[in-house]
Amino acid sequence: MTKQELFGQILSKKSYLCVGLDTDLQKLPKHLLDTEDPIFEFNKQIIDATKQYAVAYKPNIAFYEAFGAKGWESLQKTLAYIPKECFTIADAKRGDIGNTSGLYARAFFDPNSSGLDFDSVTVAPYMGEDSVTPFLTFPNKWVILLALTSNGGSKDFQTLSVGDKALFEEVLTKSQEWGTDEQLMYVVGATKADMLAQVRALAPEHFLLVPGVGAQGGSLEEVSKYGMNSTCGLLVNSSRAIIYASSGEDFAEKAAEEAQKVQAEMAQYLDLYLKK
Amino acid sequence: MTKQELFGQILSKKSYLCVGLDTDLQKLPKHLLDTEDPIFEFNKQIIDATKQYAVAYKPNIAFYEAFGAKGWESLQKTLAYIPKECFTIADAKRGDIGNTSGLYARAFFDPNSSGLDFDSVTVAPYMGEDSVTPFLTFPNKWVILLALTSNGGSKDFQTLSVGDKALFEEVLTKSQEWGTDEQLMYVVGATKADMLAQVRALAPEHFLLVPGVGAQGGSLEEVSKYGMNSTCGLLVNSSRAIIYASSGEDFAEKAAEEAQKVQAEMAQYLDLYLKK
Repeated sequence: MTKQELFGQILSKKSYLCVGLDTDLQKLPKHLLDTEDPIFEFNKQIIDATKQYAVAYKPNIAFYEAFGAKGWESLQKTLAYIPKECFTIADAKRGDIGNTSGLYARAFFDPNSSGLDFDSVTVAPYMGEDSVTPFLTFPNKWVILLALTSNGGSKDFQTLSVGDKALFEEVLTKSQEWGTDEQLMYVVGATKADMLAQVRALAPEHFLLVPGVGAQGGSLEEVSKYGMNSTCGLLVNSSRAIIYASSGEDFAEKAAEEAQKVQAEMAQYLDLYLKK
Repeated sequence: MTKQELFGQILSKKSYLCVGLDTDLQKLPKHLLDTEDPIFEFNKQIIDATKQYAVAYKPNIAFYEAFGAKGWESLQKTLAYIPKECFTIADAKRGDIGNTSGLYARAFFDPNSSGLDFDSVTVAPYMGEDSVTPFLTFPNKWVILLALTSNGGSKDFQTLSVGDKALFEEVLTKSQEWGTDEQLMYVVGATKADMLAQVRALAPEHFLLVPGVGAQGGSLEEVSKYGMNSTCGLLVNSSRAIIYASSGEDFAEKAAEEAQKVQAEMAQYLDLYLKK
């Protein structure tokens, strides 16, 4: 998917919501557990219920991989079910030496090899340039590089000073030598909304994937105010607050209500903060 | 597997060789391509041919994941075929926020969930403590944390100065607060053998997984001289130089010859450099 296509969808849905499919067998409504593939059945109903409010879906690969080959089948069915106009993110946090990253790229981007055809994959930057560039050779596919994450451990290394800036700022700067804002996005944790202005100074044109709004307590208004640019430039993820809004038979209905609430708020912020 | 069990195997085989199962369909001998599962068939013959010389096997997960669910089945069969006394490494470079890393741990360590029961998994440190500790709750399982890798991109971030040391040194130091040398190893690229002495000063007791000897040209003698401690403390990986020693029908025989050559060299270095 191109940046223009993504922006077009954001304008038409008045939303920059990404729904995280962190689908946990232990949290599924009981009535789904008798179906042939409960994880896929749950995802299917969540997608149907939220697709008019969400522009992106982000399966968290660990939740599928935990079930081995069977989990990969659930993932493949889920991806195939997501409407074509939605942006899809393999939240995989991969990254290895060049030829190995090339194989991870095939795993997520080459349906003839793996059966999967995601628009993007999250990548960890620790191994540097040759761990990232193999993903960038696929046209209209995206790397979403970890810059500043929303977890406690982000303080261990990401915010350490390297020279006159923090490590995550060096990641933002250095990686722009490897690809353009038409193929590279960044993960920026929303629990640090005050740092978004800093990030925007270094990466004014890039899309940012912002986790941690909702269950983890980031403020959507602050993220929108400091993070939005002229093509929106934000995908804000919500997982648990939407997909586990109810644990009963009404889970899909409640998920739709939550997604709709977030979308309505986003519509306002697009009016207020989208740079003309 | 415990550290003592690993060291016992090293002494009995007089070897600290890890064979990397980077099994690439495009490089397999032609006569295997008609078998039901060429990747597993290749691995099976490689394991049979090298198991008297190798103490560890390291499937590179990308090579299996590139084939989706089918690849995971080849991986599962391969792991089940590796002799129980050998140490097994899922070279996966995973790492995510706490609950997600917990699911990756189940993917590689919990056979009731995923079908896989590896002894260890490689983990990327960028996301910090809570991305690593979920793997450490499994008894006698290991995290092999990336410190200094052997690829070109290692210069982008790993060797940057944070305060008075390099980032990879900070990873070595900080991570020792999270786990002991009975559950934590480090990846240290052998193309920087001169840096091994530095690493040993910071992590004297830990096992190090050293890639990049062989095809990538590191010196086994230097690695052994500067890296060995009183429990050997080294697993030296070779992938391509062994598994692709021949592309013909004699591939397993040639792999055995190469593995035996490396083992014979290792036997000498154990005599010379093992700290008493």
